[in-house]
Amino acid sequence: MSSGPTHTAPAVLISEVGPRDGLQSVKSTMPTADKLRWIDALHAAGLREIEVASFVPARLLPQMADAADVVRHAVQLPGLAVMALVPNRKGAQAALEAGAHKLTMPVSASHAHSLANVRKTPTEMVEEVRAIAQLRTELAPGAGLEVGISTAFGCTLQGLVPEDDVIRLAVQCVEAGADDVGLSDTVGHANPAQVRRLFRRLRTEIGGHAGAAHMHNTRGLGIANCLAAWDEGVRTFDASLGGLGGCPYAPGASGNVVTEDLVFMFEAMGVATGIDIPRLVAARAPLMAGLPGEPVYGMTAEAGLPLGFVPGTSLQA
Amino acid sequence: MSSGPTHTAPAVLISEVGPRDGLQSVKSTMPTADKLRWIDALHAAGLREIEVASFVPARLLPQMADAADVVRHAVQLPGLAVMALVPNRKGAQAALEAGAHKLTMPVSASHAHSLANVRKTPTEMVEEVRAIAQLRTELAPGAGLEVGISTAFGCTLQGLVPEDDVIRLAVQCVEAGADDVGLSDTVGHANPAQVRRLFRRLRTEIGGHAGAAHMHNTRGLGIANCLAAWDEGVRTFDASLGGLGGCPYAPGASGNVVTEDLVFMFEAMGVATGIDIPRLVAARAPLMAGLPGEPVYGMTAEAGLPLGFVPGTSLQA
Repeated sequence: MSSGPTHTAPAVLISEVGPRDGLQSVKSTMPTADKLRWIDALHAAGLREIEVASFVPARLLPQMADAADVVRHAVQLPGLAVMALVPNRKGAQAALEAGAHKLTMPVSASHAHSLANVRKTPTEMVEEVRAIAQLRTELAPGAGLEVGISTAFGCTLQGLVPEDDVIRLAVQCVEAGADDVGLSDTVGHANPAQVRRLFRRLRTEIGGHAGAAHMHNTRGLGIANCLAAWDEGVRTFDASLGGLGGCPYAPGASGNVVTEDLVFMFEAMGVATGIDIPRLVAARAPLMAGLPGEPVYGMTAEAGLPLGFVPGTSLQA
Repeated sequence: MSSGPTHTAPAVLISEVGPRDGLQSVKSTMPTADKLRWIDALHAAGLREIEVASFVPARLLPQMADAADVVRHAVQLPGLAVMALVPNRKGAQAALEAGAHKLTMPVSASHAHSLANVRKTPTEMVEEVRAIAQLRTELAPGAGLEVGISTAFGCTLQGLVPEDDVIRLAVQCVEAGADDVGLSDTVGHANPAQVRRLFRRLRTEIGGHAGAAHMHNTRGLGIANCLAAWDEGVRTFDASLGGLGGCPYAPGASGNVVTEDLVFMFEAMGVATGIDIPRLVAARAPLMAGLPGEPVYGMTAEAGLPLGFVPGTSLQA
């Protein structure tokens, strides 16, 4: 419908996590050249923050063996904030040396999940945040440091996660040096009432340090939970092109919110994203070319834009 | 998780439209015996309003040739409000004679869609509402009469549908004798901002006559639009088990909100629906048995309930 990215200043930041979170969850490995084409296409669609890689040992995640190369390419794209996931100091150092603009660290609010995922307790992970914040100050004082509180809305191992634990951990991460702390529905347990409650408390406790909403669509509520977070003042949302992030039917950590549908919602509501939907849909081509046979999800890409749709305007005909 | 329908008085009414709206959109015809088993299973799960049939000429919709038989069965289920869609007086008479508790009439706000669908203008349909309201008073004064304003959020033929047209039509339908008037996103164009605006205006104009939200998931926003309507005070929601209602990818009138996911959202938020989710999921079996090969949708049924989930309580662990 439109011929290019919208010209209104974005009112919401869509942070694309497909090249990291999505690729990390699939079995096949996307060749580096395909990754770069895909990231270029995402950038061309107007995305201005992309989590491009994870700095973990290649023997654990062969999909991320080229993390430094991917970062070095992505930082050349104008206006793009290049994020990298780092689980520890070694990864943080490598990411900063490659030139990543922003580090993101997962810190789980569930003791059981934290041990299973990184073999550290939440408290030990706060100390890791502190160490990485110091490293960042030494190596790249301009770089950002974000923490995403995993299993903030529930855990497949522990079940309920006390909201007090989530908020206390967020406060500790800010005190340890994180610039902002977001909340992640890692396993798709969240509901809109809980999302509103937790983000309201988060904002009350850490103010402007309150970060992104990372929602999953495991039980079909991903977009509704984003709407609930938006209502509470959240202005950064993680999403994955084509919902990449493993089969959304798997009961585990899967089913990222589909970037195309989330962008459609905001643009239809009159909230400018800076993203051009036809170009965003076109960015599915390099993704699919790089991961032959891998299913992609999302409704807007299949249905197309409504007749009469004008992005960034909530039309009152 | 739970052993039966929740005991809290329902705070929201989920109106199941699968046996009418869903079946009408698929090519195959479900045998009557399967329909009855399916309706029984829906009732056993706790659903207390089901749109069971459409009273249209059998030559136009062979799927609905058994409408009277289905109604006569359904009215025997205790506590169930049995709804039937009627496009005209003849259908209304047949539905009331079969014992339907409530009639629902589609009245399109789009001139083009109204002509294409029923060969009448919206104004002519208001006169049909008036005639049916009179017939109802004569034949079955206790029966309800609901109007759903189709294409209230946009139209694949006309594009934008002026909000003033929608609201004026709703007012005219109430004046013509409808008990309540809901808004339908027939082709999946709606966004949450528009849903809030229109339902707010609807309530302002017709007060307690404001009826159900009938949302589609064509572009992935179905559940988010229901949340937006809930926020505006809507307390009746149409939904379809397994999202039955044609392939949700078709760009036309398709992609009903999935009952299972919608019920999960409300129960997780602490809003009692009166519906037992495991039994609701079990009601997919007779649906699938009666329509072999037809795809069913929905995430909650595949993912299962979260560990620690207690229906009807928004847990603050």
